[in-house]
Amino acid sequence: MSCPNSENMEKKDRLIFVSNDDGYQARGFAAAIEVAREFGEVIAVAPLTPQSGRSQAVTMNEPLFLELQHQEQGLQIYSFSGTPVDCVKVAFDHLLGDRKVDLVVSGINHGSNAGINVLYSGTMGAAIEGSFYDCPAIGLSLTDHSPDADFLATKHYARQIISSVLENPAEGRLCLNVNVPDIDPMDIKGVRICRQCRGIWREEFYPHENPQGRRYFWLSGAFDNYEPDCEQTDEWALANGYVAVVPVQIDMTAYDKIPYLERILK
Amino acid sequence: MSCPNSENMEKKDRLIFVSNDDGYQARGFAAAIEVAREFGEVIAVAPLTPQSGRSQAVTMNEPLFLELQHQEQGLQIYSFSGTPVDCVKVAFDHLLGDRKVDLVVSGINHGSNAGINVLYSGTMGAAIEGSFYDCPAIGLSLTDHSPDADFLATKHYARQIISSVLENPAEGRLCLNVNVPDIDPMDIKGVRICRQCRGIWREEFYPHENPQGRRYFWLSGAFDNYEPDCEQTDEWALANGYVAVVPVQIDMTAYDKIPYLERILK
Repeated sequence: MSCPNSENMEKKDRLIFVSNDDGYQARGFAAAIEVAREFGEVIAVAPLTPQSGRSQAVTMNEPLFLELQHQEQGLQIYSFSGTPVDCVKVAFDHLLGDRKVDLVVSGINHGSNAGINVLYSGTMGAAIEGSFYDCPAIGLSLTDHSPDADFLATKHYARQIISSVLENPAEGRLCLNVNVPDIDPMDIKGVRICRQCRGIWREEFYPHENPQGRRYFWLSGAFDNYEPDCEQTDEWALANGYVAVVPVQIDMTAYDKIPYLERILK
Repeated sequence: MSCPNSENMEKKDRLIFVSNDDGYQARGFAAAIEVAREFGEVIAVAPLTPQSGRSQAVTMNEPLFLELQHQEQGLQIYSFSGTPVDCVKVAFDHLLGDRKVDLVVSGINHGSNAGINVLYSGTMGAAIEGSFYDCPAIGLSLTDHSPDADFLATKHYARQIISSVLENPAEGRLCLNVNVPDIDPMDIKGVRICRQCRGIWREEFYPHENPQGRRYFWLSGAFDNYEPDCEQTDEWALANGYVAVVPVQIDMTAYDKIPYLERILK
């Protein structure tokens, strides 16, 4: 589980930025920082409060408070009162000045970000935003929502993936969505490169009434997997004991729909 | 500017769902409803408060209040105290029951959602979410942030695009990101099918101090266009007097990075 020698040699020169969406006090955030520190100096900015499901949201109409929460040799941890993406922006466009970042790590999220969750996830929002700044970005998630989730296996595979990415730089922008199944670490079969599974959330709205008689709703739902038997997907990988790694892009253009539009709109 | 006869004949049978991210009181929302009503019955759910930049965010940890704000023949307008995506979810998974929706319209946004804005936009968050429910979805934006923006041209092109989409149903999921330039309506050169422009926001954080001496920041920034001269992009179309139409997909997989990952992680 230790990094290769070539990595240790360069560790002192590296700067790793860490963020998450569960907030700076989450255990998964501490686990991500622990791993990141093995690869270099760490500066971390995470939301002041939990921001699950915040997607790529930015805060334009509220003032945002930045606070240094912890400092020791090779580590600074800040809280920021905005979204995960706000945390990345304030780090890269203010806090870090001209310092070059070698890697962005977001997480470790308490809960899956596989499939369509990549669109809703604050963890992946921060990772995607981080990848805009000319450094590789890795979002890490464990499919266990509980606050006392066991991050042992996630840390192990995070080390392996981070090490591989740092040793073999990709050409162009790189952003990875890494999800680890919540099973006995010894039963995990390894890493599988996947694509995003097709399917959507179907929600249920639980109605209640407040003491004044106003009706309100809690959002809840279940993932409807459109291709449960497809071995190429991240959901299949997780269901079958693999760590799912999906490379993430940011061009939302549906190129296959352009001929149709050229036909009907011209 | 009227719809074709074939459209009017079927109008009584159609149901159009309308949402936005500027909130149910925004003038752009009224403009979108005005256009949508020409095509059928309208049920609209929009955020209670402005939700610009909320992306695909969902609200999982707060109760959400749904309120009927206005009702007349063929029109119901609700406010919902969550994000734009929450509005779509409560409509399709609760309010509408088994009713079939023929079209989702989101907007008209006060401000551009071209280029990378598609990732941050609450307007496009609602449109993308709407497209999950087996009906075409169209996000409409005017590149003018002012509350008293002139929506004349946007309404005109919205009618044209909605009419074309309803008359010529696409195969599979369809979501359009439509942006209209803020120029004299008579100077607009027409509709242009585009792809999402490459480029990102570079932010500036304006620091201030509150009366207690705590430092806070306001987020502000400018779009850094990586390809200002590329005629295929939505930003080029807008800068050159066209209405930009980009079809939007939801598979975030960076397929071109899979061979690299197979090489370094196996």
